[in-house]
Amino acid sequence: MQTQLIAALQRIVGDNNVLVGDATADYVTDWRQRTHGQALCVVRPGSTQQVAEVVQACAQAQVAIVPQGGNTGLVEGSIPQATGEQVVLSLRRMAAVRAIDPHNMTITVEAGVVLQNLQKTVDEAGFLFPLSLGAEGSCTIGGNLATNAGGTQVVRYGNARDLCLGLEVVTADGQVWEGLHGLRKDNTGYDLRNLFIGSEGTLGIITAATLRMFPQPAAQLTAWTAVASLEAANALLALAHTQLGAALTGFEVMNQQALQLVDKHYPHLRVPMWQQTPFCVLLEASDSESESHARAAFERLLEAAMEQELVVDAIIAENLKQAHDLWHIRESITLAQAAEGVNVKHDVSLPVSRIPAFVAQTDAALQALVPGIRLVNFGHLGDGNLHYNTQAPEGSDAAAFVAQFEDAVGEVVYQAVHQHGGSISAEHGIGALKRDKLPHYKSPVALELMQRIKQALDPQQLLNPHRVLRSRASGGEG
Amino acid sequence: MQTQLIAALQRIVGDNNVLVGDATADYVTDWRQRTHGQALCVVRPGSTQQVAEVVQACAQAQVAIVPQGGNTGLVEGSIPQATGEQVVLSLRRMAAVRAIDPHNMTITVEAGVVLQNLQKTVDEAGFLFPLSLGAEGSCTIGGNLATNAGGTQVVRYGNARDLCLGLEVVTADGQVWEGLHGLRKDNTGYDLRNLFIGSEGTLGIITAATLRMFPQPAAQLTAWTAVASLEAANALLALAHTQLGAALTGFEVMNQQALQLVDKHYPHLRVPMWQQTPFCVLLEASDSESESHARAAFERLLEAAMEQELVVDAIIAENLKQAHDLWHIRESITLAQAAEGVNVKHDVSLPVSRIPAFVAQTDAALQALVPGIRLVNFGHLGDGNLHYNTQAPEGSDAAAFVAQFEDAVGEVVYQAVHQHGGSISAEHGIGALKRDKLPHYKSPVALELMQRIKQALDPQQLLNPHRVLRSRASGGEG
Repeated sequence: MQTQLIAALQRIVGDNNVLVGDATADYVTDWRQRTHGQALCVVRPGSTQQVAEVVQACAQAQVAIVPQGGNTGLVEGSIPQATGEQVVLSLRRMAAVRAIDPHNMTITVEAGVVLQNLQKTVDEAGFLFPLSLGAEGSCTIGGNLATNAGGTQVVRYGNARDLCLGLEVVTADGQVWEGLHGLRKDNTGYDLRNLFIGSEGTLGIITAATLRMFPQPAAQLTAWTAVASLEAANALLALAHTQLGAALTGFEVMNQQALQLVDKHYPHLRVPMWQQTPFCVLLEASDSESESHARAAFERLLEAAMEQELVVDAIIAENLKQAHDLWHIRESITLAQAAEGVNVKHDVSLPVSRIPAFVAQTDAALQALVPGIRLVNFGHLGDGNLHYNTQAPEGSDAAAFVAQFEDAVGEVVYQAVHQHGGSISAEHGIGALKRDKLPHYKSPVALELMQRIKQALDPQQLLNPHRVLRSRASGGEG
Repeated sequence: MQTQLIAALQRIVGDNNVLVGDATADYVTDWRQRTHGQALCVVRPGSTQQVAEVVQACAQAQVAIVPQGGNTGLVEGSIPQATGEQVVLSLRRMAAVRAIDPHNMTITVEAGVVLQNLQKTVDEAGFLFPLSLGAEGSCTIGGNLATNAGGTQVVRYGNARDLCLGLEVVTADGQVWEGLHGLRKDNTGYDLRNLFIGSEGTLGIITAATLRMFPQPAAQLTAWTAVASLEAANALLALAHTQLGAALTGFEVMNQQALQLVDKHYPHLRVPMWQQTPFCVLLEASDSESESHARAAFERLLEAAMEQELVVDAIIAENLKQAHDLWHIRESITLAQAAEGVNVKHDVSLPVSRIPAFVAQTDAALQALVPGIRLVNFGHLGDGNLHYNTQAPEGSDAAAFVAQFEDAVGEVVYQAVHQHGGSISAEHGIGALKRDKLPHYKSPVALELMQRIKQALDPQQLLNPHRVLRSRASGGEG
């Protein structure tokens, strides 16, 4: 039976594009190298028609499919289970740019286009594609949409969902929904596009998308400020919204512990101001007019913030190199954490207004749970998105800390998130990693509606089963 | 049985809030006064709990529910069928503002809040709620969300969908999904919010919403320009996107025929420039800095546009009164059309880039079909949304024209829309009016997915049956 399926898949995509055994290694291990699945095979279709035929063949054989883009996800949603019975369907070969429409400010691309290549193509066409995140050199736009990726410019441009106008999707029964269009208004029935976006490959396989392009800003400036508290950071955010309007394209907060780790492991980065206050904020402004206009607006903002005593110290990057260096500090926090040792991470979101209370309460609860625990707290404050991470107490064994406290720390964090009306997954998704946590924090009515939708669109549970939701009528496994 | 249900509903909401007979008149006639339905009764719950109990009672009695807000829809989606067997569930009594969160820039309101009141409340809180449309004095935010309303500022702020972060919904089995939250990032499962938004009351009943507020602009300016062609209008739009960036908040095109009708019926409005060129464009810019800054940017834009010969003539409104007068001309087109006689209307969208070719082709086809037909063409060009309307030839009988040609004209328009990758309903929805047209222009795969979703969330077909989709296992009727 399995041999027959592999033969059928070889007929569809060609022998070279069906991988088995050791050749599947990159496709079955998660990005963090913590979990290893096993695949019946990896199939690499080269066209939407081939994707549809692969799905039909798998449906006939009753074999489950794990759709995969760049395999850079952080919740183990794009690797197969350990059974060796699932087929990984890699979209990476489908990397064509199908169309660019400058007057409509849209680009239509296949799912396997790497995000960085997409940014570059749009840039060369004279526009901006604003989705930007750490894995952009490897992740694919199909995966970005399947997980509704976030990143650093959400405060202005929204999540991946907000950048997408149309989709092409292969359904669980191997039909092609041709929903690719470049329309900004379309009220002809249910919002299938947004249902597939963020469903992590469990409802359909995204094969192509029509995406919004934006005018390129005439100038982009970065500032770095020291603030005394999260309350001050919030007040600075409000002031920036008012004074800069849509020109505010980035607002990142970093606590002292996070910056101390960067300073310790990468002293050449020369982290500014980190010893002055408990928090620093990185701001980015994008201006449609000119650099001098952007700089004047930024200076007015920071002067007002100093007058109101929201900001203790501030610098505006003098040039692109300085701006890049400041962003590089922000982006080095994760690496500095890894250099310090294994750790426990959370990607949560809250109403912006609740963040100070949430952090104060959770910091205290975790200090009570693990005296000396180091709280490495940073994120996209403009979107209410915190990477609320923790590290073993100074000098203690990191691995032992993680083994002993990962679950307990997570529970404290998620309970507090829940209590403050937040989300336990802001931008990473649910996958396998958070699947069994979800029922504790999501309303039973929402979970029931999700189960019914899954049942309606994938009644045979063939698409990425046991991801996001545990499949019904089956226990599933990790 | 019906008497029992009415008694049960009276127990839930009180005798005064169950209307029968003549008292239902306003609730059963569509906004355009063209179609009259009949209701078993109109029930007016005052709380989410009461909505849930009403749905439970109706579900038990197997009686269908038509959810209704301000009943201002244009596609007959919020009135009952003619059978007299359906219950109209009016949300108008649920008009509380539940919370305003300035630091999170969100407001939580019940579904029955009238849009204009919502705008006012947000304005008084020091923010902007940008949804704005003709019926704003009567329509409710619940109805705006159920139909994903558009309006005049979509080019900057998006549709109703894009303004909503969280929902509270009563499901078809009378459960309450408490999805009200003010989160800008939440990747914990399927996008239920966007599934309910735009579903026209056929999947659930929206009882409350958490909405985004925006910083108030420091200044807003309006300009009026004469352009020689739609190609020139498109080039002007591209230039405005580049030079103004997110400050561009309105871009409306109007053809000569539309403006001639306004000039004819409302000469006191003194329509500028309409005899100069085949099209005029109204632009709006919102500035976070100052009026003088906005004016300088607008002047630079219009100078560049004149140099590039995109614009033949232009004025910038000197003050708020002038700006209001210019917008009033744009908003008077529909009334001028009515004053000229009954007519045939279409609310379509296209990729912006395709609009010139679409209009040229469709104008020619309609002139061939009905020599002398008057093409009244205007809309939100920045969103690719045209109100492509037609009027009887000068001097001929309007009613006879509509009776004879409404279907044939619609078919020409929709065929051309379909051919150019557009949508037959940009912002009005499907309701009953376009339901039977939809299958001709929407992909069978999409329709099949929609039917499955309807079946999954409303298996008894109790919520607004035969709207958007014909209910399965039943013929339905208009």
